Amino acid sequence: MNAYEIKKATGIEGIVLNSGRAEPEAGHGEIKIRVRATSLNYRDLLVAKGTYRGGSKPSVIPLSDGAGDVIDVGPGVSRFKVGDRVLGAFFQGWTAGAITTEATTRSLGSSIDGMLAEYVVLPEFGVIRVPSHMTDEQAATLPCAGLTAWNAMVEVGRIKAGETVLLLGTGGVSLFALQFAKLHGARVVLTSSSDAKLALAKSLGADDVINYRDTPDWDKAVSILTDGRGVDMVVEVGGPGTLERSIRSTRVGGTIAMIGVVSGTGQIDPQPLISRAIRLQGIRVGSLAMFRAMNATITKAALIPVIDRVFPFEKVHDAYARLIGGAHFGKVVITL
Amino acid sequence: MNAYEIKKATGIEGIVLNSGRAEPEAGHGEIKIRVRATSLNYRDLLVAKGTYRGGSKPSVIPLSDGAGDVIDVGPGVSRFKVGDRVLGAFFQGWTAGAITTEATTRSLGSSIDGMLAEYVVLPEFGVIRVPSHMTDEQAATLPCAGLTAWNAMVEVGRIKAGETVLLLGTGGVSLFALQFAKLHGARVVLTSSSDAKLALAKSLGADDVINYRDTPDWDKAVSILTDGRGVDMVVEVGGPGTLERSIRSTRVGGTIAMIGVVSGTGQIDPQPLISRAIRLQGIRVGSLAMFRAMNATITKAALIPVIDRVFPFEKVHDAYARLIGGAHFGKVVITL
Amino acid sequence: MNAYEIKKATGIEGIVLNSGRAEPEAGHGEIKIRVRATSLNYRDLLVAKGTYRGGSKPSVIPLSDGAGDVIDVGPGVSRFKVGDRVLGAFFQGWTAGAITTEATTRSLGSSIDGMLAEYVVLPEFGVIRVPSHMTDEQAATLPCAGLTAWNAMVEVGRIKAGETVLLLGTGGVSLFALQFAKLHGARVVLTSSSDAKLALAKSLGADDVINYRDTPDWDKAVSILTDGRGVDMVVEVGGPGTLERSIRSTRVGGTIAMIGVVSGTGQIDPQPLISRAIRLQGIRVGSLAMFRAMNATITKAALIPVIDRVFPFEKVHDAYARLIGGAHFGKVVITL
Amino acid sequence: MNAYEIKKATGIEGIVLNSGRAEPEAGHGEIKIRVRATSLNYRDLLVAKGTYRGGSKPSVIPLSDGAGDVIDVGPGVSRFKVGDRVLGAFFQGWTAGAITTEATTRSLGSSIDGMLAEYVVLPEFGVIRVPSHMTDEQAATLPCAGLTAWNAMVEVGRIKAGETVLLLGTGGVSLFALQFAKLHGARVVLTSSSDAKLALAKSLGADDVINYRDTPDWDKAVSILTDGRGVDMVVEVGGPGTLERSIRSTRVGGTIAMIGVVSGTGQIDPQPLISRAIRLQGIRVGSLAMFRAMNATITKAALIPVIDRVFPFEKVHDAYARLIGGAHFGKVVITL
Repeated sequence: MNAYEIKKATGIEGIVLNSGRAEPEAGHGEIKIRVRATSLNYRDLLVAKGTYRGGSKPSVIPLSDGAGDVIDVGPGVSRFKVGDRVLGAFFQGWTAGAITTEATTRSLGSSIDGMLAEYVVLPEFGVIRVPSHMTDEQAATLPCAGLTAWNAMVEVGRIKAGETVLLLGTGGVSLFALQFAKLHGARVVLTSSSDAKLALAKSLGADDVINYRDTPDWDKAVSILTDGRGVDMVVEVGGPGTLERSIRSTRVGGTIAMIGVVSGTGQIDPQPLISRAIRLQGIRVGSLAMFRAMNATITKAALIPVIDRVFPFEKVHDAYARLIGGAHFGKVVITL
Repeated sequence: MNAYEIKKATGIEGIVLNSGRAEPEAGHGEIKIRVRATSLNYRDLLVAKGTYRGGSKPSVIPLSDGAGDVIDVGPGVSRFKVGDRVLGAFFQGWTAGAITTEATTRSLGSSIDGMLAEYVVLPEFGVIRVPSHMTDEQAATLPCAGLTAWNAMVEVGRIKAGETVLLLGTGGVSLFALQFAKLHGARVVLTSSSDAKLALAKSLGADDVINYRDTPDWDKAVSILTDGRGVDMVVEVGGPGTLERSIRSTRVGGTIAMIGVVSGTGQIDPQPLISRAIRLQGIRVGSLAMFRAMNATITKAALIPVIDRVFPFEKVHDAYARLIGGAHFGKVVITL
Repeated sequence: MNAYEIKKATGIEGIVLNSGRAEPEAGHGEIKIRVRATSLNYRDLLVAKGTYRGGSKPSVIPLSDGAGDVIDVGPGVSRFKVGDRVLGAFFQGWTAGAITTEATTRSLGSSIDGMLAEYVVLPEFGVIRVPSHMTDEQAATLPCAGLTAWNAMVEVGRIKAGETVLLLGTGGVSLFALQFAKLHGARVVLTSSSDAKLALAKSLGADDVINYRDTPDWDKAVSILTDGRGVDMVVEVGGPGTLERSIRSTRVGGTIAMIGVVSGTGQIDPQPLISRAIRLQGIRVGSLAMFRAMNATITKAALIPVIDRVFPFEKVHDAYARLIGGAHFGKVVITL
Repeated sequence: MNAYEIKKATGIEGIVLNSGRAEPEAGHGEIKIRVRATSLNYRDLLVAKGTYRGGSKPSVIPLSDGAGDVIDVGPGVSRFKVGDRVLGAFFQGWTAGAITTEATTRSLGSSIDGMLAEYVVLPEFGVIRVPSHMTDEQAATLPCAGLTAWNAMVEVGRIKAGETVLLLGTGGVSLFALQFAKLHGARVVLTSSSDAKLALAKSLGADDVINYRDTPDWDKAVSILTDGRGVDMVVEVGGPGTLERSIRSTRVGGTIAMIGVVSGTGQIDPQPLISRAIRLQGIRVGSLAMFRAMNATITKAALIPVIDRVFPFEKVHDAYARLIGGAHFGKVVITL
């Protein structure tokens, strides 16, 4: 079959098409999926560069996110049948309940093969149905960015009507967080360096926007917007580069859900977390049970993910380049 | 009346006795207390040096912790009567519920006058009864160190039987945390640089102890003691000097309750909080409702705080020096 | 001053105007309010009939709900000033945190004098600001019905987008619950015996409505509407007369918030609560802290309570009769 | 193989030995267990009489609880190997997270074959390791009674040091609840009709005991023991026969975890649940994740279940008769 592999973890040029990759077959309790669409996450750039924490296996098939059709089921499979539209779960092992080391050992597209292939085989407990109102392209954006935003906002943050959320930038997680916040009746303050992106965010429901290039002290702007109180919650995707300002933007007793690291490594002064009695909570995607809850909710709300651009399978490198370029607004998708 | 004041916030020599301080009288809804015992916290050293966050008012009477007898009640007081034995609450304003800015504005011994005086007047909503099984000296240790440990372990950490807690050192908060952990059936791992103190901690119930001078990589020792899994919770009192090791000592999905700053300022790399999905929670003492719950529990359990040494009112500077010296094990108390 | 009193607790004829009632004055920590609007709750009918649990004091001034202007403040009051628009709290004593016996001893309009008077004096800790976007008439509906619905839906039920709530009838609590559910992105199924009221409920956002006169087995209708799964939450105001059907309408692991008793006394079989692992939670209005959170949220959302009809102070008996008649949709309000 | 079957669901005489029952073999993802010990629950009497809710399949092998050795593993099994000592989970499907209908469809010894057989085959996700410090007989008591008590006390009740728990009788769930309460530092009040059993309960750590035969108004006795406040939590195993007294025994805002139905069907007045703002929570055993947490805790605490008597496989009817007789204190166990 056709599949991309990370031949050398040196960047996108190390991602090569292998037209002779062995086609996997569904074993006991497994499902064979004809992949129809995948999406890219910032994490996939780190995998491609070899800087992803935990590393990845040699010649791994990249990408955690993908949707497709069930075309075969192995013996013992009871929950899915041929023809079902499904998504793979980021963590192949976190069914439900609290996070554990065991639950997060096997992640698609790094420690085990991912979705950038014509065919993928996954255990039936690592698969979930596509929300019925979504296309494959739309659904393919959910497993990493969507579920991470859901975990942060709903599971950890217990976001409520009347609360205010601060979102940093317009990456995949932030845009899902924006949609989830509005769904729950919360107010959204969002930052970006691009007025065009801020305008798009407003059209998606952002209540207040801040251009952090024009307003480098954006924490002060957040403070003013919240009458000096600070926001109830931050979905912090910037890492050390933004965390200190995020802390100053958060109300006493508030929550910062900290996700991935886009803006590099670095250090922060933890002291203000004490004086403001803040909860700083590390987030790692989510469980299959959370995924199920998210899908039920977004199906009822007929929520549609924001897609930036769809690339064909042959143009995988262009898709990666689009993500690296940073001009995107919404998810970068690849169809097969 | 006699009261100590912080004349110059330059250290303990700036704390002076004022024998002519005006005696306060109980106004509407207020209680007049004859103070019998007070206790020292590390925070009081910062107040004395003028480095306490938020600062303190000029000529403030120091110390947040004190127990005494109600000797007068103002009009409108309904909950207390002359003769009751009471404690002041650290925050004069945090009755119950979640922490807010307003709840934490007025704290005894810094922004408002504290307990190192013969007489203190407090609103009845800022006062709580002394646990009946305790002496004034014992009770005087509760308002700051005791309640902080309770908030960390019980309110935030929801400590349960079978869980493992890591405690750093043998300061006031850590020793209360040790007692509370054992009360709830948890296992305690405790670090100190002194074998003598470790032995004392063992006699109080610590299950495993680590001399961090002998074992500078104490996070590795914690890992071994927990079969590589890490502890469920850390009561982190060391600040940036220990936080990175504390993070490495915590299990995936665990909690670090972060309190005060004994070991100075500094920076940490927040990234491992994400990869381990840890909750880092800033703690600020606690509410009156938590204080009530704590007192109910320690009364039923007949828990007795650990007192290092009791100094007379005339020897206040010796008491401070004892705390600065660092040889203490348990709370340093001053009687009046 | 003019005030209504319950002379004989035998029904609305026992409610009489006393034009010579002594005007209360603000003592220590108290606020004097010129009442501008009050609202009726079903509970007030029980007080008038003398069947309210806990009873009421002789010649009590009825009604828990009222809004007005601060016209005087007693010594020691720091949070309010003359001219502020305020509401009284149902429980004069439940500031924040978990419910206790002490917190619920003093309730306006039964154990202590209520709001159906020209002037009312309350402690400053029993008073809250009127949401700025509301008239006095609108605000007067909040203290009992509004806060009860908030406690049930938000505090206890933690209602989330995508969840489904079952509401019984169109009384004050149910209509607030409907508005709060929609605010949080939830789906609402609502029952009534009146097609006209169901149509009004739909106009307020109810997603599905059931006429329980036409469909006496409304639990089966709920089951069909939820694909056999049952709702996530019921705000149960019907008591024993509806509770068994409510239980059958609730999903495995769901929550029933049980409020007041409109449909009389009786008994139920508790067994199905076990087989469905349901939480049946008794609700009693709420704390001042919840009230503050509710007001913050409804202010941001510019939510306007549903008012059925406004009666002048002279027509108090007509107002009661309107509530007894049962034709109302929304709150019955009295202006002064 | 030898297995008991429920030939006619008319009582224990309908339980017959089938020496020619086909021996099951481990299929995909399944484990074959040589059963070494099983234990009886009150629920098994209902299954035998045909009155168990949900019914049971024809000729079902009874008993949910059993421990044994893994003697074979099917293809695809990764978590267990031959020689492991294991327990079956009551619900073959509730892995983790919140309870759902799907999670509770398959329960051992009723809807699917149970453990009273020489060999049992279960999916690897329906099996858990025996705590290493326990014999097979001891471990065989855990899956139903142990886990139910754990769910009630720890998951739902979040029992804490200083709280008071009311336990009804000395059945399996109550004795586990007693041990778990003491492990967490809580106080236990326990009722029974037998002074001998009360004495045994005291020896296990019960703080206060009430003979409900001598004190039929035991709710008043509980009230006195708690200074009129009521207990924080009841583990309610009596059903309608005791529930109203349990409600009166519970503090305002307390929790009643309601389990099984030993004392028959009936009705209760739900009104006091409202006036006391009580949570009445139906409990159904628990998930595999809870089982894992329970085993970790009881292993660390070296907790040993209370066994009444051990019967050989040939004396199954005597074991059932022992349970029916009601003279037992602790679990009735059958060895193979």
